[in-house]
Amino acid sequence: MSLLVVGSVAFDAVETPHGKVDRMLGGAATYFSVAASYFTHVNLVGIVGTDFTAKDESIFKGRRIDTQGLERADGKTFFWAGKYSENMNERTTLATDLNVFAEFKPKLPEAYLTSSHIFLANIDPTLQASVLHQVSKRPRVVALDTMNYWIERTPKELRETLKHTDILVINDSETRQLSNEHNLLMAARHIFKMGPKALVIKRGEYGAMLVHQNRTFNVPAFPLEVVHDPTGAGDSFAGGFMGYLATSKKVDDAALRRAMVYGSVMGSFAVEKFGLDRLRKLKKSEISSRARHFHKMTQFSL
Amino acid sequence: MSLLVVGSVAFDAVETPHGKVDRMLGGAATYFSVAASYFTHVNLVGIVGTDFTAKDESIFKGRRIDTQGLERADGKTFFWAGKYSENMNERTTLATDLNVFAEFKPKLPEAYLTSSHIFLANIDPTLQASVLHQVSKRPRVVALDTMNYWIERTPKELRETLKHTDILVINDSETRQLSNEHNLLMAARHIFKMGPKALVIKRGEYGAMLVHQNRTFNVPAFPLEVVHDPTGAGDSFAGGFMGYLATSKKVDDAALRRAMVYGSVMGSFAVEKFGLDRLRKLKKSEISSRARHFHKMTQFSL
Repeated sequence: MSLLVVGSVAFDAVETPHGKVDRMLGGAATYFSVAASYFTHVNLVGIVGTDFTAKDESIFKGRRIDTQGLERADGKTFFWAGKYSENMNERTTLATDLNVFAEFKPKLPEAYLTSSHIFLANIDPTLQASVLHQVSKRPRVVALDTMNYWIERTPKELRETLKHTDILVINDSETRQLSNEHNLLMAARHIFKMGPKALVIKRGEYGAMLVHQNRTFNVPAFPLEVVHDPTGAGDSFAGGFMGYLATSKKVDDAALRRAMVYGSVMGSFAVEKFGLDRLRKLKKSEISSRARHFHKMTQFSL
Repeated sequence: MSLLVVGSVAFDAVETPHGKVDRMLGGAATYFSVAASYFTHVNLVGIVGTDFTAKDESIFKGRRIDTQGLERADGKTFFWAGKYSENMNERTTLATDLNVFAEFKPKLPEAYLTSSHIFLANIDPTLQASVLHQVSKRPRVVALDTMNYWIERTPKELRETLKHTDILVINDSETRQLSNEHNLLMAARHIFKMGPKALVIKRGEYGAMLVHQNRTFNVPAFPLEVVHDPTGAGDSFAGGFMGYLATSKKVDDAALRRAMVYGSVMGSFAVEKFGLDRLRKLKKSEISSRARHFHKMTQFSL
């Protein structure tokens, strides 16, 4: 089994009430692949510019991350700048410089063509679809993330890509926008008609919810006294979720539940420090320990 | 064991996207006592006016609810009118006519003085304290609800009453306002210094969270495709929570967790129909079945 991710590799400037960093490694595919690499082998597809140094790339080294698919192009790497509000529940985007990402056309190296699991991070749905067209056999699981921008501007293309998606991983406002339904159960019904068989709703400080085969499963957010930087939490969640799933023989309800927990575990680590600082230094034992903590936070007997 | 509740008994006018009722029975103590009566014997303390008929009072009949403590005064019963937004996540109060409630001085009948469990619903903290002064021995569990109005206008009196409170049952915005802390764990620490040993945070569509002895426990909200009327959900939660607790020999972590689940069960039933329409017709088997459903929604094995 191997897990392919396509998405952004970026430099971020982030300001939160706990600090400010002018330039650090970020991007959905970066958070995803680092988080997922604790569980499985990851094939990374993305694009960076000439300002992306060997030192920057070292984040992927010594992990189970294949960077053959990380294209280098003339120009600068995607840059994003954002600032979080006092309570971290709102963020303002200060800059989005696509740079080399504007011309990104994902190309899968030969070795990636048989990836069993695919995560299409939040990029243009047409590019997401182009990845699916390249693989040589139907992957076991295709999961997709998207955002308001694509829901509004490329609804047709998004609908087309969703037809080939097994699991949609989005937040609650995106769920409501995509389905045009406020009630999340009703929203899930609409979304299942579009293609996905499972819906994973990321709800920030409220945790995450899985809707699958008329069942719902809920995981709370891990309670932290201080959240340093929420950037990348959702992508780290997706990394833990898909990373775990790629190690599971079955994609049944029990496996999806565990994947939800490991997603929440990785998301909770991501926000403990700025950028990838916490995720890059995790021990396997810390991951297991936090997963057990989630168990303690939710279990009861009647 | 017996459970005493003091709070409002009222008439409500409610408008939601699913309908409009000009006058129906409501009030925190009403929702609480009906919900709790499925678990234990309830001693009700409240006040109504001359417009409160025998038919209105029939809601309490045939249940384990003692209405000796329901005072009748000259004048009209407390009246509240409110309208919910399209998504039900906001409500506008259109009228609050205190009527006889303005002169309410809770008086406990002799039979109530040894109540083992007390729920002080959201009323003036001085009145809440007066109930505690009347009981003849320290109750096993005192729980309290309050709201922004009392947090802002009678902070000193509220602090005094909180000193004698074991469990605080409030929503997340009240938690933040009372503690002056956005982070709920930090907020809980502040609140524990005020007296309560456990904090139950009601989070509406996101469920509820218990903080107790450095542990957190989370219950999601029950997923409903249609919420007809959110009025009384929090009080029904409190009724299920305290009702269950009053049947439990121990007030340990396991019992508090089950109480959280039964609270969520009763809150979820409350919103299925207008006013008390769903709560008043519940079967024991429906309660157990929904509690098992909560189990299915949250359990996983690692």
